[in-house]
Amino acid sequence: MSSSFFNDLKELLEKLPGIGPRQASRFIWAMLDFESKEREKMASLISNLDSHLTRCVECFRAFGTATPGSSKPGFETSKKPGFFPPGVIICPFCQPNSSRDHSKIMVVERDSDLLNIEKSKIYNGIYHVLGGALDPLEKDDSVRKKIKKLWDRISRSSTSDVKSSKTSDVFPREIIIALSPTKLGEFTASFIEKIFEPLSKSRNIKISRLARGLATGTDLEYADEMTLRQAIDNRK
Amino acid sequence: MSSSFFNDLKELLEKLPGIGPRQASRFIWAMLDFESKEREKMASLISNLDSHLTRCVECFRAFGTATPGSSKPGFETSKKPGFFPPGVIICPFCQPNSSRDHSKIMVVERDSDLLNIEKSKIYNGIYHVLGGALDPLEKDDSVRKKIKKLWDRISRSSTSDVKSSKTSDVFPREIIIALSPTKLGEFTASFIEKIFEPLSKSRNIKISRLARGLATGTDLEYADEMTLRQAIDNRK
Repeated sequence: MSSSFFNDLKELLEKLPGIGPRQASRFIWAMLDFESKEREKMASLISNLDSHLTRCVECFRAFGTATPGSSKPGFETSKKPGFFPPGVIICPFCQPNSSRDHSKIMVVERDSDLLNIEKSKIYNGIYHVLGGALDPLEKDDSVRKKIKKLWDRISRSSTSDVKSSKTSDVFPREIIIALSPTKLGEFTASFIEKIFEPLSKSRNIKISRLARGLATGTDLEYADEMTLRQAIDNRK
Repeated sequence: MSSSFFNDLKELLEKLPGIGPRQASRFIWAMLDFESKEREKMASLISNLDSHLTRCVECFRAFGTATPGSSKPGFETSKKPGFFPPGVIICPFCQPNSSRDHSKIMVVERDSDLLNIEKSKIYNGIYHVLGGALDPLEKDDSVRKKIKKLWDRISRSSTSDVKSSKTSDVFPREIIIALSPTKLGEFTASFIEKIFEPLSKSRNIKISRLARGLATGTDLEYADEMTLRQAIDNRK
């Protein structure tokens, strides 16, 4: 094996979510069997990724260039002076003049969660993508930083400065916590609820969580205790 | 979403083994969060993959360049005139002057299987990598072609032409079928046994399979019926 080459590529592939050393090696062997032009195309797409896809500075969701097919892709930047600094990359949802309901902010863990909600077409508010759940055992504080950004985002949009410039329609009225009902997801949700409690009270912002109960199609016989308890407690 | 860009990359990532559309999308979002230089490095490694890693024309195993670190990587090519055509890429194992025992050829499905056997250091023969198991429901006939190549390889090395040039020490004496004991693996093994039977008889080449029985560390209580039957039948 050309060990340094192989290991360099393996190490990078292991950074992909859910990929361990074995799977990474398998990827390399599989790519070796790709046609040469497929490998070239993949390499070029990966290397140009950040000019076609970026994260909104407001909600952190990944979104594509506004001009697909154009040779020089560009992202929509803020145009409304005084609200966002000019030139900052804002996604179409977060643009103040978008058709989305800016009074609701849904907090999700990942882009895949957001995409699943968008596919259902039952939500028209805006988002805040944490990039994961808070993990007390992890050193990485990127999720914590994004919760801080949510705080900044809400405080900023409800200051009197903005009110005077007639953008009161974008005031957040509700934070919907839409994290997965896993241990870390629950921990993160409780953390957000606790942190935002004072802001929620002083600015009259509702903090809600997605309902818990029996999922459609599940068999009552096999429902776990936690789900059953919540289904009974939240009965109506 | 810059849909054509996103979908192009997603489609290529879905060609990796075990990766579906969801996982492919997750990979793209994860790569977006890589540092720019990591993405560049990954792209460059993928695009240069075939100059650092290649498949042996004899045994089809993936192997690295013979001169790691060199700016212009090169592969060892055949040097012994009359055995392989000059310039053909042969792995260090298959080179006629290698230290490997050329009388044994082990047939494996994948490079990962080969690597696991090499790690154990209990086998010193050469290999033949099929790239998978035969699947009667698949149109792709690459595995079948590689079985044909094994036939060519064995017939070629046991012709009198080679014998006269004093390379009789590289005569294959045994084909070890080392395929996974799955349905398709078993099917492929039986296919190879049947196809090679006449060659085996006329050239006196032994065809063997890896032993079947209880794996070390398994609990007899939980052994499946098939394994138990083979453990009893093959007792000694």
